[in-house]
Amino acid sequence: MPTTPEVLISEVGPRDGLQSVKATMPTAHKLLWIDALVAAGLREIEVGSFVPPSLLPQMADAPAVVAHALQHPGLTVMALVPNRRGAEAALASGVHKITLPVSVSEAHSLANVRKTREQMLDELRAVHALRRDAVPGVAMEVGLSTAFGCTLQGAVAEDDVIRLAVACVEAGADEVGLSDTTGMANPAQVRRLFTRLRAELGERAGAAHMHNTRGLGLANCLAAFDVGVRTFDASLGGLGGCPYAPGASGNVVTEDLVFMFEAMGVRTGIDLSKLIAAREPLKAGLPGEPVYGMTPEAGLPKGWPTHPTP
Amino acid sequence: MPTTPEVLISEVGPRDGLQSVKATMPTAHKLLWIDALVAAGLREIEVGSFVPPSLLPQMADAPAVVAHALQHPGLTVMALVPNRRGAEAALASGVHKITLPVSVSEAHSLANVRKTREQMLDELRAVHALRRDAVPGVAMEVGLSTAFGCTLQGAVAEDDVIRLAVACVEAGADEVGLSDTTGMANPAQVRRLFTRLRAELGERAGAAHMHNTRGLGLANCLAAFDVGVRTFDASLGGLGGCPYAPGASGNVVTEDLVFMFEAMGVRTGIDLSKLIAAREPLKAGLPGEPVYGMTPEAGLPKGWPTHPTP
Repeated sequence: MPTTPEVLISEVGPRDGLQSVKATMPTAHKLLWIDALVAAGLREIEVGSFVPPSLLPQMADAPAVVAHALQHPGLTVMALVPNRRGAEAALASGVHKITLPVSVSEAHSLANVRKTREQMLDELRAVHALRRDAVPGVAMEVGLSTAFGCTLQGAVAEDDVIRLAVACVEAGADEVGLSDTTGMANPAQVRRLFTRLRAELGERAGAAHMHNTRGLGLANCLAAFDVGVRTFDASLGGLGGCPYAPGASGNVVTEDLVFMFEAMGVRTGIDLSKLIAAREPLKAGLPGEPVYGMTPEAGLPKGWPTHPTP
Repeated sequence: MPTTPEVLISEVGPRDGLQSVKATMPTAHKLLWIDALVAAGLREIEVGSFVPPSLLPQMADAPAVVAHALQHPGLTVMALVPNRRGAEAALASGVHKITLPVSVSEAHSLANVRKTREQMLDELRAVHALRRDAVPGVAMEVGLSTAFGCTLQGAVAEDDVIRLAVACVEAGADEVGLSDTTGMANPAQVRRLFTRLRAELGERAGAAHMHNTRGLGLANCLAAFDVGVRTFDASLGGLGGCPYAPGASGNVVTEDLVFMFEAMGVRTGIDLSKLIAAREPLKAGLPGEPVYGMTPEAGLPKGWPTHPTP
């Protein structure tokens, strides 16, 4: 039985999830939650974002959370930074990897970070110069927001996505992934765009960050897997915008995604029972917050782990 | 723009959905609901099942519902029959197509219809003889239950599925589809099994009937589409076992399935706005019953219908 993981599940709950809810999870609970995620076998976690606490008080403890996460050997500790100032703080904290959001939709870019796409590319170049001089071992990833459509702009041209991805690599990004920020992606589009992305960027083509807004989260992950994507963002309990509410963001649920891959015989390196157990510290740290997931609710099937029986 | 539908969505809500809820939808509401489904563009509807009213009072009005549905030109009116006696009543009502459930799992077969698989094949031969003599134009379909796993037996061998499918065709079935009765299917298994089914049965390989118990309903439909399946069962509002409750059956939600295909540019012949409107008569006829669907809750994306913009 092969034990080497074939896909990397990148858990974004402690950043993407926690910054989307109103309540602030106490630091001690964040650390317990991260420990439980690591115990389940997660190898990459986006643990926080480095933004002014006045904007996102939920993320004010990011340096402490990073310091704790760094004690787990083998874990890639990741943080989101919106700009050069955030990158300085993140690099000082000791993270292994930083990720920057760049919107393909100009309207979304202005609304989200109050910068044009060109200004975000300038920011990217500044961050790249910073890490190159200060801590060259730190990886820099870009997630292209609204790559599959925008609630402000509507359809997003696929040529725009690819052009911007190439520009991000030229600006210094090690990897460029595609995000379905608005839950508008479909499997055919996912296959086309990731195929083009890999053709243009080769090994610098990054993660699929899918949302389940219209129920297509797993189908879109499957479509991305089919064309060679091997890194997938997901959020435990689907935290990050209520997935069943109108206009929801709805991250793909880590538990369901891991169930899909493991059931297919695609190794994730994650123990699904322990992953489901990691919902407890999440719930304890955010009392009253809805936590989603079909697999945890239905339970694991009889005979799990099942293996193909041809 | 192509307008010929490329896939057939077979709506099972009026049968599979309504027989799974405790309340009985009044006949007048059933007719309004079916009219709304037809107005949205559905071309095949399983309108009821012919079983003793003592067992399923929800289906006692099946002949009246069939009679009404037959007035819609172009609609394939379908009913479930568990045995020869049910088939007699169904054929007398004038349906275009009957479907019989045959379990691959012997344990499930005994629990569900109190017959072994061999006894169900005998039943199938008797029903085939009946329709051949009485109304030869009526199609006979088999849905193989527990084809992807069984809550009683656990894993189901793929060879058993294929052997039983061949036996059903030999017993007279025009089409044999595969049902994920227990929500245990995964996309790799779906691709393997439908590929083998088509290799063995050719054009007699039938529909994919997927459940969303563990969130994989649409991913499994995509996997089936990828290997050539073109008929998909689905239930409006996911009616048919609460999809979000432990042990749920959870039919694939018609609205989400149609959204996926239409977004991919695969024509269903269905108007998604009218399909969402068809939830109203369903809700009116079953007050208080939960109705699911991510696409109806999130709404259609800006600029819908979108078309690929390479």
